[in-house]
Amino acid sequence: MEKGKFYGIITPVITPFNEDGEIDFKAFEILLNFLKDKVDGIFVNATTGEFTSLSLDEKVEILKFVKNIVNDKVKLFSNITSTCFKDVEKLIEVSNNLKYDAIIIIPPFFLIPDTKGIEDYFLSILKITEIPLLIYNIPSNTGYSLQVELIRNLALSEKKLIGVKATIDSLNYLKDLILLIKSKREEFSVLTGFESYLVPNLISGGDGGIVALSNFAPDLMKRAVIDFENKDFDSLNETHRKILKLSEIYKNSSSFAGAIKTSLNLLGFPIKRKVRIPLLEDEEDKVEKIKDILSSLKLVI
Amino acid sequence: MEKGKFYGIITPVITPFNEDGEIDFKAFEILLNFLKDKVDGIFVNATTGEFTSLSLDEKVEILKFVKNIVNDKVKLFSNITSTCFKDVEKLIEVSNNLKYDAIIIIPPFFLIPDTKGIEDYFLSILKITEIPLLIYNIPSNTGYSLQVELIRNLALSEKKLIGVKATIDSLNYLKDLILLIKSKREEFSVLTGFESYLVPNLISGGDGGIVALSNFAPDLMKRAVIDFENKDFDSLNETHRKILKLSEIYKNSSSFAGAIKTSLNLLGFPIKRKVRIPLLEDEEDKVEKIKDILSSLKLVI
Amino acid sequence: MEKGKFYGIITPVITPFNEDGEIDFKAFEILLNFLKDKVDGIFVNATTGEFTSLSLDEKVEILKFVKNIVNDKVKLFSNITSTCFKDVEKLIEVSNNLKYDAIIIIPPFFLIPDTKGIEDYFLSILKITEIPLLIYNIPSNTGYSLQVELIRNLALSEKKLIGVKATIDSLNYLKDLILLIKSKREEFSVLTGFESYLVPNLISGGDGGIVALSNFAPDLMKRAVIDFENKDFDSLNETHRKILKLSEIYKNSSSFAGAIKTSLNLLGFPIKRKVRIPLLEDEEDKVEKIKDILSSLKLVI
Amino acid sequence: MEKGKFYGIITPVITPFNEDGEIDFKAFEILLNFLKDKVDGIFVNATTGEFTSLSLDEKVEILKFVKNIVNDKVKLFSNITSTCFKDVEKLIEVSNNLKYDAIIIIPPFFLIPDTKGIEDYFLSILKITEIPLLIYNIPSNTGYSLQVELIRNLALSEKKLIGVKATIDSLNYLKDLILLIKSKREEFSVLTGFESYLVPNLISGGDGGIVALSNFAPDLMKRAVIDFENKDFDSLNETHRKILKLSEIYKNSSSFAGAIKTSLNLLGFPIKRKVRIPLLEDEEDKVEKIKDILSSLKLVI
Repeated sequence: MEKGKFYGIITPVITPFNEDGEIDFKAFEILLNFLKDKVDGIFVNATTGEFTSLSLDEKVEILKFVKNIVNDKVKLFSNITSTCFKDVEKLIEVSNNLKYDAIIIIPPFFLIPDTKGIEDYFLSILKITEIPLLIYNIPSNTGYSLQVELIRNLALSEKKLIGVKATIDSLNYLKDLILLIKSKREEFSVLTGFESYLVPNLISGGDGGIVALSNFAPDLMKRAVIDFENKDFDSLNETHRKILKLSEIYKNSSSFAGAIKTSLNLLGFPIKRKVRIPLLEDEEDKVEKIKDILSSLKLVI
Repeated sequence: MEKGKFYGIITPVITPFNEDGEIDFKAFEILLNFLKDKVDGIFVNATTGEFTSLSLDEKVEILKFVKNIVNDKVKLFSNITSTCFKDVEKLIEVSNNLKYDAIIIIPPFFLIPDTKGIEDYFLSILKITEIPLLIYNIPSNTGYSLQVELIRNLALSEKKLIGVKATIDSLNYLKDLILLIKSKREEFSVLTGFESYLVPNLISGGDGGIVALSNFAPDLMKRAVIDFENKDFDSLNETHRKILKLSEIYKNSSSFAGAIKTSLNLLGFPIKRKVRIPLLEDEEDKVEKIKDILSSLKLVI
Repeated sequence: MEKGKFYGIITPVITPFNEDGEIDFKAFEILLNFLKDKVDGIFVNATTGEFTSLSLDEKVEILKFVKNIVNDKVKLFSNITSTCFKDVEKLIEVSNNLKYDAIIIIPPFFLIPDTKGIEDYFLSILKITEIPLLIYNIPSNTGYSLQVELIRNLALSEKKLIGVKATIDSLNYLKDLILLIKSKREEFSVLTGFESYLVPNLISGGDGGIVALSNFAPDLMKRAVIDFENKDFDSLNETHRKILKLSEIYKNSSSFAGAIKTSLNLLGFPIKRKVRIPLLEDEEDKVEKIKDILSSLKLVI
Repeated sequence: MEKGKFYGIITPVITPFNEDGEIDFKAFEILLNFLKDKVDGIFVNATTGEFTSLSLDEKVEILKFVKNIVNDKVKLFSNITSTCFKDVEKLIEVSNNLKYDAIIIIPPFFLIPDTKGIEDYFLSILKITEIPLLIYNIPSNTGYSLQVELIRNLALSEKKLIGVKATIDSLNYLKDLILLIKSKREEFSVLTGFESYLVPNLISGGDGGIVALSNFAPDLMKRAVIDFENKDFDSLNETHRKILKLSEIYKNSSSFAGAIKTSLNLLGFPIKRKVRIPLLEDEEDKVEKIKDILSSLKLVI
């Protein structure tokens, strides 16, 4: 299987906040500068970036800010998701104008149309974007999983639909994306959103992951891709098992964003644990457990 | 059981659109004038009003517009729901300033915190509103049902929390709201969001409904409440069975908003079938089936 | 709507056990003699009767025993459900030979075929039974809800399919059974398995219930039917609200069978709280709570 | 991570039937003789063996028959699952007397107790068996997934509980079994029930699989284990991708048992496609699709 157009490790970057809840652009810049030499792409206004808690104006501001800082160092991905299609259109326009590498859309949630309605929804987006589109399936948050068959029908006729981010605890879903779509169109990228699936996805023919642990452990995530390319069996096994252990931090936080912010904070980044409503900042007992995991993997001393 | 503070029939009013998708305020005014003498309340920016497809500016504009037209004729309810808490705060402020009778919030969706986080979320709202709050449980759209126990804990200590709209196909849920909350605090309103539950809710001790069919059949919905108060067994039975039949229109539409708009259109209101993305306008075969149901109930000749 | 062939209150009778777990036929006889003058039917080897914990031989023995005791006093219903179709065939044969009034089958569980397979399953049963069949939808135990459309297709062509027991917390499901099947074929019986739905089912056009509380409170259950037939609005309301309160005992037990056995025991029946593995006997704190509910309704003094 | 007590490829053997639905012992013997030199174990009365469609007498007969044929050539596993605990006790007794290597139990289904009840259920079994026990989590059939925490509590105190068969499309579940149980007790076996997880389970620290494709493709399944032990990166990748392709046969059958029987039949084994009610025999169009998949992998010429 050939590599898809987008391959490797993409960071769904958190949005740092000050104690008053406003965006901490200073911390954001430090994080972006750390990441831009280490990963293959940065995904802006991601779920881990708490996009649903950002206003439209803030999302636009972040798109400009990130582009300005990491310009051309890594590929840039923009989450255009909103329940309000007027806002989706605005985010598509900004992302296109700023020359992001691709836009990413989550299927409709809250008001969920039938299959025909979902197809029309994606076609409405494909009609107005010039840069490529990835579809982002995240059933834990939308309440339903997008059928592979529906994605397949679109992907085999719409060339601008270039891949999928699948944040779903199911190897069979990744398998279907690979066997039913990627095997017919190799540039199509199959990217996991779960760290535990990074190596299984690669050995199954997928293209890597958009994985939140790469916010603070980009080298470990990249190691998996490099080991796989080097066909280094022992190192790949070791890297995979380290990743499994590190992903235990999620169980010790009340949210994905919280787990990442707590980890960055523990590792010395000037990033506060602050998350926006409705999420809760991790309390001390959870912080301690995350510290233990980071220590056991020698990430914190 | 005493009546709760809000009782009877409240209309979750649709938002009429022109063919270009912009709000049709002329049609909106006609509908509001029709409703204001017939129902006990109007719920603005409702799910049937496609609130998730409206921009923040549009929601504010609608709040002002509706207040201006129906001023003091019926009680007014404002949906303040947004995933972005900055937008929630803005909608609370506007609703309070306009002297709406109550605000209504859907529990967090997409990013869903744990129980503690959900409680904190409601408390954050209760802290800043002066007008009462109703919680709106709608698991088909949020992906989870809010625990009655959680609502109970809040309702027994927070007087501004005044009721629940329960759009859930479960009599046992309504029963729990009534036995565990309303029986301890009678002003607390238990309102169903499903027409089929209107009469069962009343006979179980609840307070009526916020029901979309009242957009075009307010008299039939009010009939149920009047029959119940008159203890008119035969008429209540007949009304209930008519309501069951009328609610079959939902099965013949791809959305709640679509079913109501198609019905209004068929009944001669100057309201287009237009809905916003991601919903789809009903096609002709569905329109015909809805017409048959309306005819069989003598609503259309 | 005319009454269906089976109408009123049917008791899904518990199976009493001795402390060693063997069937307590002496206690069983007392319970059956109590019930046979008070209800319209008795359902043997029911879910509340722990049928899945009985061996095939025990089920056959119970069928004979019950027939022998209540012969011709009330209608008798036999649960023929087993995952092993050889056992289903045996139970059909015995029930037919003993001249039970109807057999009842739960849709396939554990190994669940597609829609065609489920239809074939019911047809295989209809082919070999001479007495009528009721289908028993209980999604909390089978893991899925049987589509009304599937039942409808069978019911409109197979006259021996005579009704449904719907143990599902959904008024819309009962509504669909009534509007899509019973309205086309009035002898078809729509029976609820939940006490809280007994009155809502009657006012919606259904035929009553197969409800476990009638094991110890048959008069209260019958009261609902009589009130409904007498069009006694006030009494029906009061009866319905009593039933809602009484059904709270289920929340205070680890199983339906446990709640009923504990209640019978508290009310002075010579019936032990003993249930079979995998169920657990209620502990004292639960027993106390059930006692409180029974007392508040003046069932225990 | 050390190997668990049971490791490698275990075949959940189908139960061959004649056209009249009776067990085809002649075909069974041929299949067992084929398997006994190729795999590490045979699992009798498995889900793929349609155990829920077998009578108790048939299950006992099969246990004896298989023991007699494959005696000491491979490890033998006996499914003792039944909803009726009297039948469970009988199957434990027979399996112990026949000196099977382990018994396997599915958690309670249909009547599902609370967590305490489920723990007591497993303890009741552990008390009476002398041979080791594996727990078999199969949420697609039971309707719920057994919590890893519950298994962990038992596994760290009960030495006779020796492993888990996890037939669940979730790498995170396997990960939890490995990190929370196996890492504390290395003899504990973590076995997948899905072929697509065979290699991912091995690289994550698990012990192989009880996988139905090994009924007819034991060499391909064993290849995965051998490649993994040889640290042969290229061959392991190739084997994994072949397994992913071969597992596509399940999508082209109405049941697991059907897919395996159809494949065996196509490959020239004297095994009929016959399955028992409620399953359906594969129709010709499905048989053709399975044939295409087998051909593409050079299993059929």
